[in-house]
Amino acid sequence: MLKFGVIGYGYWGPNIVRNLRGLEGCQLVGICDQSPAARKKIQAAHPGVPVFSDSQELISSPDVDVIAVITPVWTHYALAKAALENGKHVFVEKPFTGNVAQAEELINLAEQKNLQIMVDHTFLFTGAVRKIRQLLTEGALGKLYYYDSTRVNLGLFQHDCNVIWDLAPHDLSIMNYLLGKDAEAIVATGQTHLNGHADIAFITAYFPDKMIAHINVNWLSPVKIRTTLIGGEKKMVVWNDLEADEKVKVYDKGVDVTGQEGVYNLLVSYRSGDMWAPHVEQLEALRVELAYFVECIKKNEKPFNDGRAGLNVVRMLEAANESLTKRGSLVYLDRTSQSTSNVLPIAV
Amino acid sequence: MLKFGVIGYGYWGPNIVRNLRGLEGCQLVGICDQSPAARKKIQAAHPGVPVFSDSQELISSPDVDVIAVITPVWTHYALAKAALENGKHVFVEKPFTGNVAQAEELINLAEQKNLQIMVDHTFLFTGAVRKIRQLLTEGALGKLYYYDSTRVNLGLFQHDCNVIWDLAPHDLSIMNYLLGKDAEAIVATGQTHLNGHADIAFITAYFPDKMIAHINVNWLSPVKIRTTLIGGEKKMVVWNDLEADEKVKVYDKGVDVTGQEGVYNLLVSYRSGDMWAPHVEQLEALRVELAYFVECIKKNEKPFNDGRAGLNVVRMLEAANESLTKRGSLVYLDRTSQSTSNVLPIAV
Amino acid sequence: MLKFGVIGYGYWGPNIVRNLRGLEGCQLVGICDQSPAARKKIQAAHPGVPVFSDSQELISSPDVDVIAVITPVWTHYALAKAALENGKHVFVEKPFTGNVAQAEELINLAEQKNLQIMVDHTFLFTGAVRKIRQLLTEGALGKLYYYDSTRVNLGLFQHDCNVIWDLAPHDLSIMNYLLGKDAEAIVATGQTHLNGHADIAFITAYFPDKMIAHINVNWLSPVKIRTTLIGGEKKMVVWNDLEADEKVKVYDKGVDVTGQEGVYNLLVSYRSGDMWAPHVEQLEALRVELAYFVECIKKNEKPFNDGRAGLNVVRMLEAANESLTKRGSLVYLDRTSQSTSNVLPIAV
Amino acid sequence: MLKFGVIGYGYWGPNIVRNLRGLEGCQLVGICDQSPAARKKIQAAHPGVPVFSDSQELISSPDVDVIAVITPVWTHYALAKAALENGKHVFVEKPFTGNVAQAEELINLAEQKNLQIMVDHTFLFTGAVRKIRQLLTEGALGKLYYYDSTRVNLGLFQHDCNVIWDLAPHDLSIMNYLLGKDAEAIVATGQTHLNGHADIAFITAYFPDKMIAHINVNWLSPVKIRTTLIGGEKKMVVWNDLEADEKVKVYDKGVDVTGQEGVYNLLVSYRSGDMWAPHVEQLEALRVELAYFVECIKKNEKPFNDGRAGLNVVRMLEAANESLTKRGSLVYLDRTSQSTSNVLPIAV
Repeated sequence: MLKFGVIGYGYWGPNIVRNLRGLEGCQLVGICDQSPAARKKIQAAHPGVPVFSDSQELISSPDVDVIAVITPVWTHYALAKAALENGKHVFVEKPFTGNVAQAEELINLAEQKNLQIMVDHTFLFTGAVRKIRQLLTEGALGKLYYYDSTRVNLGLFQHDCNVIWDLAPHDLSIMNYLLGKDAEAIVATGQTHLNGHADIAFITAYFPDKMIAHINVNWLSPVKIRTTLIGGEKKMVVWNDLEADEKVKVYDKGVDVTGQEGVYNLLVSYRSGDMWAPHVEQLEALRVELAYFVECIKKNEKPFNDGRAGLNVVRMLEAANESLTKRGSLVYLDRTSQSTSNVLPIAV
Repeated sequence: MLKFGVIGYGYWGPNIVRNLRGLEGCQLVGICDQSPAARKKIQAAHPGVPVFSDSQELISSPDVDVIAVITPVWTHYALAKAALENGKHVFVEKPFTGNVAQAEELINLAEQKNLQIMVDHTFLFTGAVRKIRQLLTEGALGKLYYYDSTRVNLGLFQHDCNVIWDLAPHDLSIMNYLLGKDAEAIVATGQTHLNGHADIAFITAYFPDKMIAHINVNWLSPVKIRTTLIGGEKKMVVWNDLEADEKVKVYDKGVDVTGQEGVYNLLVSYRSGDMWAPHVEQLEALRVELAYFVECIKKNEKPFNDGRAGLNVVRMLEAANESLTKRGSLVYLDRTSQSTSNVLPIAV
Repeated sequence: MLKFGVIGYGYWGPNIVRNLRGLEGCQLVGICDQSPAARKKIQAAHPGVPVFSDSQELISSPDVDVIAVITPVWTHYALAKAALENGKHVFVEKPFTGNVAQAEELINLAEQKNLQIMVDHTFLFTGAVRKIRQLLTEGALGKLYYYDSTRVNLGLFQHDCNVIWDLAPHDLSIMNYLLGKDAEAIVATGQTHLNGHADIAFITAYFPDKMIAHINVNWLSPVKIRTTLIGGEKKMVVWNDLEADEKVKVYDKGVDVTGQEGVYNLLVSYRSGDMWAPHVEQLEALRVELAYFVECIKKNEKPFNDGRAGLNVVRMLEAANESLTKRGSLVYLDRTSQSTSNVLPIAV
Repeated sequence: MLKFGVIGYGYWGPNIVRNLRGLEGCQLVGICDQSPAARKKIQAAHPGVPVFSDSQELISSPDVDVIAVITPVWTHYALAKAALENGKHVFVEKPFTGNVAQAEELINLAEQKNLQIMVDHTFLFTGAVRKIRQLLTEGALGKLYYYDSTRVNLGLFQHDCNVIWDLAPHDLSIMNYLLGKDAEAIVATGQTHLNGHADIAFITAYFPDKMIAHINVNWLSPVKIRTTLIGGEKKMVVWNDLEADEKVKVYDKGVDVTGQEGVYNLLVSYRSGDMWAPHVEQLEALRVELAYFVECIKKNEKPFNDGRAGLNVVRMLEAANESLTKRGSLVYLDRTSQSTSNVLPIAV
């Protein structure tokens, strides 16, 4: 029986708590929040569960095996570090940390202590992403051409970071998981209109073999859009996460270049076949993710959404932020050297 | 009675011819195409209309007042120049020319000869664009934040240019017309997968006063999307050109920043009111455009989609192409000096 | 402080309980269910709330002011009658009772005892229905022509009644509420394919002044549809309850008959103006409804969804059922005489 | 080379003419219309084609092999009869005739003269209907439960008939073609609001083996809907004719009744699998239909959409009309006796 302590009961914390309470093999031993209002909510919704105002008390408790850090990003590093130093496994909200150096330090610390880190990239556990991953693993799409995601809505939810740090971690983590490859360089553009943080941004990631990815994030859209196009040589996928059913559509469409006769007579032909919407499981992703973490800890195995996966996302966020401030300058993602950058996840 | 000669009877030419035939105040006096197959089609569809294989013959005919150039972009300059030199007004397919220098030369020539140039940015004459223009002119949207267009489908229609030169002229001309402002600089990214031309591209245009525009063009999309979001301080517009009715939706949605209490306590509030889809006229845009050109020639007035409007689009295409080849480098749109660049509208 | 006892903790009961717990001015004093599994669920979800297996115990408790009957329809009459006889107000799930005679008896009993009955037609408290009601009350649509609702999905949720008794109460109650008029006669057709109950049915209700209503209910549809068209002389409404936003659209469309010149030259003209989607409140309808019932009881006022409203729906269900068994025979809705029919809400 | 004469150049006639002109194996030898305005249009659009004002002249011309009757329904019988008597094959607009007796007489006459009749049920030649027919022929859907079509829009196009005679022929002909079975009886309800003809109607058709069909037609809908649900034991189809692509969707959804334990414990389980949208051909249906008629005449074979197919539709229209006037009375479709009814296709 793994004993969980949860730090942070704001927007997302209640979902973590609700799922932990129903989860086999784990026990919720305490919830911490600095805010008196939040603590009052905890008591009303979960009478009987111990409530803390000081995170150190929970982190240092011998009765805790795992600490879930569900707080603003700028607090992740210190809380996760303290938890690891106290011998606790860590489940940490995305994005993992505010910069690459912090992420690397936490990964090293966990390895030294033989502890597990899971970064809460919940989307990786949805039926839709798992189905697309399966299609890609089977090679159904052939060589990949592009990944193009639009994630826009009305909502300036974050006061401490820009739209890239708020919305892009979803797409970056999904993209990394699906493609299984690292991007080489990033270009980002965008603009800041209201509160000093960029509220609209466009990110391009260059991958090897002419794969290109593009992410459109926007806090100022009158309509909510969650659509991703994935183009491959053999098939193409449209994932519309707002569809109740038929979230994932697979198109037997494409272009065949069958020859070239002189400059202006390239022979291309278009393939326009059936569309197929595979049945997608409707389980709650967060529950599946937490159950998987319990399993990983028991088996002493790293989850695929471990600290390193979280680090890759943070590295791309840093690069995107840097490019954004330089109005589209190409920023390479150097993975060989220890990053020394200290980009704060704040206003551009 | 204005006498029109049409050069080029490929994909778009038949639409020009059909509309000219029914148009009051104008007469179709000849159609020219180098291809014997195209000439056979002309004769079948328009018995009685003179057909030419040599464009010079039509251009130099004293019986012609206006030459419509509906040919591939790399031929526009020479044909339009010959027409102007022969004292003919010119209607030329978009994009105007293959580079800025050519466009400037044609504009100067037309001014010397007191002739009119119209560049066929047909979209400007659709009910949807005219309705949005009206909303913007009335100030209904307030200060503009962004213009974000997605124009993707399956189709590598062009052998002589990339997806930017093929699809982006629509968005650039619409954007220029709607905003009434010039962009300052451009960033473009993209990739070439199949035939040596970029088939997917993402263009960002920086405007004064923090306005930002973004255009997503793609020849390799399994689904057709024609959606433009326009975000303003007071209202926001979603234009979906694929909707049969309700192409333009106006949202009374937005964000109000009402104060700031310290760094993490910015007070924002969301406004979520009614949506309104104004009735949009369903006239054929090309017919409206040609009737307007006849009117402009009669009154000896420059159309708003004149050579200069066409030049502005070409300048942005050149800049986007240059940025694309440099993987996102910022390219300034300098309008003060005579451009000397000679960027060909071809492969990247 | 009104004290509520809830009978029935199956599909809908948990929602009643959840909303009662957070509701000002009321207290949940007990939940009853015959099933041991259901009682276990209650204890897990609501530790501390008294649980009963015998409804009589709860109904006769002096500590209870209101009984909520959230059980299968064939049990409503007996439970509601016992509650009323014990001096309790009654909140009863839709449809009110299994036949007209039962409904009339309960209404009389409540009046004698000066107690309130509310029938849980939750939809009447949604933002969408309240907005449409407001439009109709203001006369925005002009004279009404028709009400046409499609309510289909895959799901044979009920074992004790057919699709008419399961799905049509929503439309009938909404229709009655919106139109404020009684239908004169009903025609219903349909078919039984699987378990002895009609699983697809089409109901027509004739109203005075040429208003006509139509309801399409189906348990065997591969897609979920919840769309209602309301046609009026001045304006028309499309209510799509599955839209996240823009549930209600008001069309300035219609037909004007401007004259008649001989039999084949009727002069009609079509009006095709703007569309307008008013902002619709997103409050939880059940919460609004329960708060309203608390208010009604305090003020000793009949709610608009009282026993008589419930009776009207049951009378139409009976008539539809009768017509269905007679393959479309017209059945009049006679409200003048005391009904003596005893139609069971079961298989056709 | 079959020589066609076309009578009627109103709404649909121009499409017949355009397709005949491009069709191999046939020649257009004359077009007739009583209206001077229509004749002027013919001359403008088709210079060189002989134009007639008197249909008899065209019908009796020895230069004509086939007469296409594209006129209002009440004129079909007389024109088609004259054509057959003059030894011409007949292509006649839907609905075939104004009543059953006329249709039977024309069928008999054609058989005596060894001439072909084709009734223009164009929809049967669309890619969508042919694909659904293929699925049904292969047994992909299993035993059929229902056919439910909604065909509504704003438009009172017909002055000489009601909405049933105007819109339902599409659905009735498609249904008959797809199911390959005759309905046994019909119930129809509806209402007349504006010009003396029913403008909204709901038709139920009872088929053998518990198959049921339903058709919703409406001239007063603010939105256009063209959606047909077909429910089968194994699979279900949704055909949305307004979708640009993906018109036909096949759902692997259904209900399995796996046993019955007492009255209230029926064991049903829901199957919710993949959805599949087969590629549907985009040929112009009218061209395919006319080419097929040319082929049938050459081979001296009856088309599947012959006079008898047209008669079946007229018989159902008559029955629906009769039921409509009797407010939903069941009307049997007796095919054994020669019909003597003389229902006019007019106002209800």
